Amino acid sequence: MARIALDASGGDFAPERPVAGALEALSTLPKSCEIVLVGREAEVSAELERQGGSRDRISIADAPETIGMGEKPLAALKSKRQSSIRVGLELQKEGRAHAFISAGNTGAMMAASLVVLGKHEGVERPAIGTVLPTIGKPVLLLDAGANVDCSPRELLGFAQLGAVYARDIFGQPEPTVGLLNIGEEPEKGNTASKEAFPLLQGNTHFHFRGNVEGSDILQGVCDVIVCDGFVGNIALKFYESVGRTVINLMQQELDETVVQSHGARRVFEFLDYSTYGGAPLLGVQGVSIICHGRSSPRAFANAIRLAFRAVDAHLSDHIHDEFVPDGVVA
Amino acid sequence: MARIALDASGGDFAPERPVAGALEALSTLPKSCEIVLVGREAEVSAELERQGGSRDRISIADAPETIGMGEKPLAALKSKRQSSIRVGLELQKEGRAHAFISAGNTGAMMAASLVVLGKHEGVERPAIGTVLPTIGKPVLLLDAGANVDCSPRELLGFAQLGAVYARDIFGQPEPTVGLLNIGEEPEKGNTASKEAFPLLQGNTHFHFRGNVEGSDILQGVCDVIVCDGFVGNIALKFYESVGRTVINLMQQELDETVVQSHGARRVFEFLDYSTYGGAPLLGVQGVSIICHGRSSPRAFANAIRLAFRAVDAHLSDHIHDEFVPDGVVA
Repeated sequence: MARIALDASGGDFAPERPVAGALEALSTLPKSCEIVLVGREAEVSAELERQGGSRDRISIADAPETIGMGEKPLAALKSKRQSSIRVGLELQKEGRAHAFISAGNTGAMMAASLVVLGKHEGVERPAIGTVLPTIGKPVLLLDAGANVDCSPRELLGFAQLGAVYARDIFGQPEPTVGLLNIGEEPEKGNTASKEAFPLLQGNTHFHFRGNVEGSDILQGVCDVIVCDGFVGNIALKFYESVGRTVINLMQQELDETVVQSHGARRVFEFLDYSTYGGAPLLGVQGVSIICHGRSSPRAFANAIRLAFRAVDAHLSDHIHDEFVPDGVVA
Repeated sequence: MARIALDASGGDFAPERPVAGALEALSTLPKSCEIVLVGREAEVSAELERQGGSRDRISIADAPETIGMGEKPLAALKSKRQSSIRVGLELQKEGRAHAFISAGNTGAMMAASLVVLGKHEGVERPAIGTVLPTIGKPVLLLDAGANVDCSPRELLGFAQLGAVYARDIFGQPEPTVGLLNIGEEPEKGNTASKEAFPLLQGNTHFHFRGNVEGSDILQGVCDVIVCDGFVGNIALKFYESVGRTVINLMQQELDETVVQSHGARRVFEFLDYSTYGGAPLLGVQGVSIICHGRSSPRAFANAIRLAFRAVDAHLSDHIHDEFVPDGVVA
């Protein structure tokens, strides 16, 4: 059994889209999967009814407060003890849910995950992983924005987190990891990446593919790509915006019938980052998934499927084992 | 009069494409513009004849050696004194050309530009500027890869270089500059960007637009975006590869007639970074333009037009004046 808590008050189109995503996900997930919608009870209940959702595998946890997108994370967490983000994570902490998903304030979601769930022993800094579509297999890029100015050791930690993810979620028994850099040679890059190279090369946890360049990200050359959160966040947001720009351009330049065609829609789907599921915060004790504020119902459904998969595969336990093997504290 | 030297041996498709680009550029540039093709004389001469090019405004400077794409820049520059890159830059140094363009080894082009042309007084580190298409006006992103681990002062220097470029080449009398970052607030970012913010804000040379995010790059929110060369290079190469990936996907998913349509070709043109002109190395004494190894004839023609514009606008003199105002050494 897996019970996934979902922030029904988080994101730009709440509660409509999270609720729609929950219903969509439940239609395909095993019967043993349940969803807890976290938000203003009356509002969420009304929305669920409006969408004709059965209460069969859905329950509601009341959270009368919401942290706005523009609020300062730490201050908001302190002043709003009944926010959906806090209530949702506490459900997980208390064992009444196995995962929590939110499209609300990203900073608050990160901070609350650290405060409520805590880090796994041995993990220096949790990282946001984001899955990018490639023409072939998907690739996990991390860190996508949780940490700036990362040390070589932290980059190694991200690689370990990513490798566990690739094993559990991508089903890659022997994941390959690349270091995002500006050239293939080990001596290329900034100080952190040059010093991270031998650390990554010397590890015994995953296969280090060496440096990968910006041009390799979508080429499926490895399962995991590590970088600091400054570079990762800029690359990710740039990517999203290139996608939106190209979609607009295609809609402007191509005939209406072409724009409506199956083929064009496949291109749009590839380009529209908001259709992808959420980004897990890896390294915390539990499953915490951050969604884009503008997530579509399909994106929420994908995030729920991802959460289910993470719970089912014991991702959090495996991260624990990766950093504290055989119960020995590093 | 402007005489532009072009590396006819540089790039993956030399001498064919550089020569074709030269002929294309000359057909539209003022009669006072001449081109010097730098490369193996017999080979370049034969190619020029094959393409039916008149010798009217084209001359050839013999350079019997070529630096390969994989060669170590400094070693190659030392051992190959007669390489096309070195010969072309020396033509400029001696006043026999006003600009040099190469699609050859980027590292060798940067190193040779510094050695042969030298930096402008007051410029800490020259930067590669790259023009990205936005839906509206173009934007100059720099540094695109010449410098990693940049100090806040160096980022300020890039902003000054970019502002001069925007005035001279974009024709923006009051250019706006943004700092590439992971959030809008001044306190966001890594150490270098946080410290660069007040320096940029305090300057009197250009209008500082504040922090811009990855999602803003293509939105035309400012004329110049500054970042360190690590981030800039990764973003740029990522962008190129997204473009190629989307073009492939469109060719795969859309009907042949659609792919051949005027509208689709406009989308491809937007996405194909290799069609854009070269990237100037700003801060050296002269005009040095780096082209993509896979540049099309049109890309070479655009780079030649850019070089002509830079010479005509006295870009290099204006960079000198920016860093050493009124002859006072900083």
